[in-house]
Amino acid sequence: MNKYSKASPRGQQKLRTGVVGATGYAGQELLNRLARHPGVELVAAMSSGRPASSDASPDAAVRVADLAPAYTGALTCTPASVAAMQEAGAEFVFLATPPEVSTEWVEGLPEGVQIVDLSGAYRFRDDVVYGWPEKNREAIQRARVVSNPGCYATAALTALWPLLKAGIIEADGIICDAKSGASGAGKGLRADLHFVELEANCKAYSVFTHRHAPEIARHAGMAGDGAASFIFTPHLLPTARGILATHYLRLAPGVEAAAIAASYDSAYAAEPFVRVRGTRLPELRDVNHTNYCDVGWNVRGRQVVVVTALDNLVKGAAGQALQNFNLMAGWPEATGLL
Amino acid sequence: MNKYSKASPRGQQKLRTGVVGATGYAGQELLNRLARHPGVELVAAMSSGRPASSDASPDAAVRVADLAPAYTGALTCTPASVAAMQEAGAEFVFLATPPEVSTEWVEGLPEGVQIVDLSGAYRFRDDVVYGWPEKNREAIQRARVVSNPGCYATAALTALWPLLKAGIIEADGIICDAKSGASGAGKGLRADLHFVELEANCKAYSVFTHRHAPEIARHAGMAGDGAASFIFTPHLLPTARGILATHYLRLAPGVEAAAIAASYDSAYAAEPFVRVRGTRLPELRDVNHTNYCDVGWNVRGRQVVVVTALDNLVKGAAGQALQNFNLMAGWPEATGLL
Amino acid sequence: MNKYSKASPRGQQKLRTGVVGATGYAGQELLNRLARHPGVELVAAMSSGRPASSDASPDAAVRVADLAPAYTGALTCTPASVAAMQEAGAEFVFLATPPEVSTEWVEGLPEGVQIVDLSGAYRFRDDVVYGWPEKNREAIQRARVVSNPGCYATAALTALWPLLKAGIIEADGIICDAKSGASGAGKGLRADLHFVELEANCKAYSVFTHRHAPEIARHAGMAGDGAASFIFTPHLLPTARGILATHYLRLAPGVEAAAIAASYDSAYAAEPFVRVRGTRLPELRDVNHTNYCDVGWNVRGRQVVVVTALDNLVKGAAGQALQNFNLMAGWPEATGLL
Amino acid sequence: MNKYSKASPRGQQKLRTGVVGATGYAGQELLNRLARHPGVELVAAMSSGRPASSDASPDAAVRVADLAPAYTGALTCTPASVAAMQEAGAEFVFLATPPEVSTEWVEGLPEGVQIVDLSGAYRFRDDVVYGWPEKNREAIQRARVVSNPGCYATAALTALWPLLKAGIIEADGIICDAKSGASGAGKGLRADLHFVELEANCKAYSVFTHRHAPEIARHAGMAGDGAASFIFTPHLLPTARGILATHYLRLAPGVEAAAIAASYDSAYAAEPFVRVRGTRLPELRDVNHTNYCDVGWNVRGRQVVVVTALDNLVKGAAGQALQNFNLMAGWPEATGLL
Repeated sequence: MNKYSKASPRGQQKLRTGVVGATGYAGQELLNRLARHPGVELVAAMSSGRPASSDASPDAAVRVADLAPAYTGALTCTPASVAAMQEAGAEFVFLATPPEVSTEWVEGLPEGVQIVDLSGAYRFRDDVVYGWPEKNREAIQRARVVSNPGCYATAALTALWPLLKAGIIEADGIICDAKSGASGAGKGLRADLHFVELEANCKAYSVFTHRHAPEIARHAGMAGDGAASFIFTPHLLPTARGILATHYLRLAPGVEAAAIAASYDSAYAAEPFVRVRGTRLPELRDVNHTNYCDVGWNVRGRQVVVVTALDNLVKGAAGQALQNFNLMAGWPEATGLL
Repeated sequence: MNKYSKASPRGQQKLRTGVVGATGYAGQELLNRLARHPGVELVAAMSSGRPASSDASPDAAVRVADLAPAYTGALTCTPASVAAMQEAGAEFVFLATPPEVSTEWVEGLPEGVQIVDLSGAYRFRDDVVYGWPEKNREAIQRARVVSNPGCYATAALTALWPLLKAGIIEADGIICDAKSGASGAGKGLRADLHFVELEANCKAYSVFTHRHAPEIARHAGMAGDGAASFIFTPHLLPTARGILATHYLRLAPGVEAAAIAASYDSAYAAEPFVRVRGTRLPELRDVNHTNYCDVGWNVRGRQVVVVTALDNLVKGAAGQALQNFNLMAGWPEATGLL
Repeated sequence: MNKYSKASPRGQQKLRTGVVGATGYAGQELLNRLARHPGVELVAAMSSGRPASSDASPDAAVRVADLAPAYTGALTCTPASVAAMQEAGAEFVFLATPPEVSTEWVEGLPEGVQIVDLSGAYRFRDDVVYGWPEKNREAIQRARVVSNPGCYATAALTALWPLLKAGIIEADGIICDAKSGASGAGKGLRADLHFVELEANCKAYSVFTHRHAPEIARHAGMAGDGAASFIFTPHLLPTARGILATHYLRLAPGVEAAAIAASYDSAYAAEPFVRVRGTRLPELRDVNHTNYCDVGWNVRGRQVVVVTALDNLVKGAAGQALQNFNLMAGWPEATGLL
Repeated sequence: MNKYSKASPRGQQKLRTGVVGATGYAGQELLNRLARHPGVELVAAMSSGRPASSDASPDAAVRVADLAPAYTGALTCTPASVAAMQEAGAEFVFLATPPEVSTEWVEGLPEGVQIVDLSGAYRFRDDVVYGWPEKNREAIQRARVVSNPGCYATAALTALWPLLKAGIIEADGIICDAKSGASGAGKGLRADLHFVELEANCKAYSVFTHRHAPEIARHAGMAGDGAASFIFTPHLLPTARGILATHYLRLAPGVEAAAIAASYDSAYAAEPFVRVRGTRLPELRDVNHTNYCDVGWNVRGRQVVVVTALDNLVKGAAGQALQNFNLMAGWPEATGLL
């Protein structure tokens, strides 16, 4: 029990809820889903930057209804301010903000406020719960502050964690070749995200250096040589949404191929948002606009290829954040997610 | 004869050639084609802005070979400077620059230098030749300075000018509903050109206010009520390249439908870069990456729908500029364009 | 009162519901929404053709859960059969079928069964209600059989009907230049819908001959010269979804521009699924995956350009069909549509 | 010297040339380039199937000019026939046909006719030259029949062959994770290539079973365990063109990272169509519509990630076929390819 855990479980009640980072892609996706959630009263939508809208004047307040069509109230987006959030009486706050901003908010909000942080700021902290429900459900239910996993990390953990936990694959030399749509790179203007540049393009980036690699290694339970030799290669796809992650693994000596299915079934049979597909490999169109992460695999001898797919803005960000909200606030886990 | 005309025709010779605005989409398309032109020695590529490259440091000089794969020389892109261009000994200069920059260059370069200006700066001047070869070939051949038409204007003029000249359509109430790929909006970063925003989008813009509307009216020969009542509605398509323009016209009283084909044949039968398609309407994929403008039409009673298609960066910009170069420099008109 | 009207209004109750044409794009969109509708018990999903799936063997029954991710039951898709539908006890049937198939079903089902037909078979019948709620809400509430409007027709009617009804625009010479995503052409394999062919393409088709043109003319209230002179030009866009329709109209003599806003406000202020945008023109991304049809306009003198946007599979097909279901079955009109 | 080798080298001369499989994507790309080649007189374009055109009647002969805009002659596409090809006097024949058709043609054409076969029929034959110029240039120059490499194979061989030949990487456990645009799957109509299905999709396919895997293993010089453990995973991208292949390799014990650059430089420094990029990883947009294959890499300890990129229709098919033509017919290797 520390300051990031929760004093006592809440019952189902409408929580006064705030979103910081409301104008980004994850923020917008979140607002759209919060607007339809029976347990949420949206009291503040804040943004640290300029409204990322082509036709809005920089002075004009952005209406939340313009950011999130499902929202029919009158709220407008206001500048990010911890004090203003407290004044609005927020009981639950989502942070879809850069890490340095998240730290400031997590440390600044009073201890009565529950928080899901979508940044990477708290993903390596022993005293903050890592919000991947498939692994940490009970801890999430007791947490006051939850660190929402990265989009790539969710795709890779779904493939790797059950197999590593069961000890049926070799822990070193694991490879994840991941492909992501452009919304994963955010709404900020970048030359390589201009429509004309990306339209018929595909490229690898941040090879050996992406910040999600250590996040995956840590939460999949890799250690020592395993973590050091893990290779994660992200690629940019000419699509708006979705992550397809292809993993290259080797069965541990003496392990049969059937152990793969057994491990995934054991880990995910009761999970509402992981679909175990067997040898039918998942595709982006199976998961886009849903909170599902699908997993499928093929085996040849000791070689295993596992493919996972999810929507980077839903299960990879806002949907998972809402799944964590449901666990933290005592709602059925799938509320607002189907 | 004025300072924008040419003293005497040149024979075929290799001209020392410079490009200003080399890093934009039209500039790059132009460099790629100049690199393979037998009559061009590229002596300078200049840019007024920052290198629009995602991975280049702002200080690094951009290599022309990186802007234009067909170029195999060692030239790098340098800051725009009239003096430096003269020093480089340029005999022919292409200006793919904003209008206010073009004016400065056209007025600043010595009278011995030939110029094709791709901006809109000189498109309404009686003393500068409008570089649409299908109408003004002979004047272009004699010109020192040529004003290259706008991309939308080329598509609309190809549809309208032969019919208005022949007097077979009513001159007022003409409508052009045009759809363009995103490269027409340029390389500058804009929220609505972010891949995620444009990927599944389509929208109209600048209704009644686009600067190409008066350009079309002027050079198609509309006057008075015709020019005032002309409606031009541009739309943004989720593609990189191409303009498809759909025109709504009415046959003049007593005119037969066959007059349409006769007018287009008369205007374009000998043209190397206009393909008269009859009732088979053109599509973007017929013309993309080519210097062709295709025209097709359907008639019902007095109602006429004419569709034209071209590549906005080729026949709508760099290709037409090179076509003008060929005419001005005495090369066969299709050199470097097939 | 005829055999296509309903004997007496039903209260809110769960209706045993069947879908014919379940494997097409409209059928899938419909199943996904029916799966979450509190008033629907899905009892049959039928298809007349082969399962349109790349990896399914033609013999294998397609699971409804594979067609519609929101459906979590065990139903599989079966061959279309009026007898089997009766055996399943369907009280409400959606027909997402070709016109000739729809006719067979409408005439074959017993009179106790309510029907929404998404084909064009009954759109020109005086004795069948045309299911555009914005115009015919009360008749729909009393109907047993409703003919769901075409996708293009919905976009055009939203723009045209209020202005024609108010008599503020000239009724002849109306033009609708419409652009549609590829799902409007259906799931059938066609060379021009192959990804490689459409990816960077745009084209007009069926100029003067599209079957939605007379549908629009009839239900917008055009008559005589107006209907004969109405021009409808559909275009294919390189997107999956969405219709953007640009209309060219003239104000009647003496009418002020303000009459446009007044007419739209009068027609749509209370409508749940039409958003009147004023001079801010709608875009596809505002409406995709929603049941909204947005309308905006610009005026210059007597010239009016009206743009409407909708999702062809939602407000243009399955969403509107569900809106009609709600009206016919006594549910709040927006149930399952927000 | 066998019947697949050439009696004596030809000098530069215009060869009477035929294309079989003219209506496919590789056939069209080839025709477009042959049309501009100074050493080619196109005498026949044949197709075994129906014209793959949306608006052509099946009876109508397809004009070559419609298949290949660069071609300005009057030839039409005719049914595939060895006899007709001989009658046309073809001296050089390109086969862009299925393997079983290619075999028939290679065995049926008289020995005086030179052949490049783009199918997989002869890629595993010791007595037929494998047409990858970077490895087999001299043999190609002497060959009568050349087997053109597969698209994926060219991308993988460019990455693997120099390193395996130099013995600087471990030969077993090599992984190639490749991503290809849809034209690689051909023009045939398939549900998963419908625009609506592929537009926002990405998927892996043929894991452990793709026919290019043994082709790569054989021509990269893998043997025994190396060939058996090689993993090749193709993916389908939502683009029309291009292959990006990401390779996972381990340096052999004691080898320094610098050996990578040395091996590539040694293999490719003089190659006209391989660009060695160093640590700057290639992207699709660098190579699309060109005959280049770019190679770049990153190293961490003994782990090596190599990325190659090419246009599957150019260096992966028609461009490489023309490169082989140039070698076989005695033209400069880059003729028609820049």
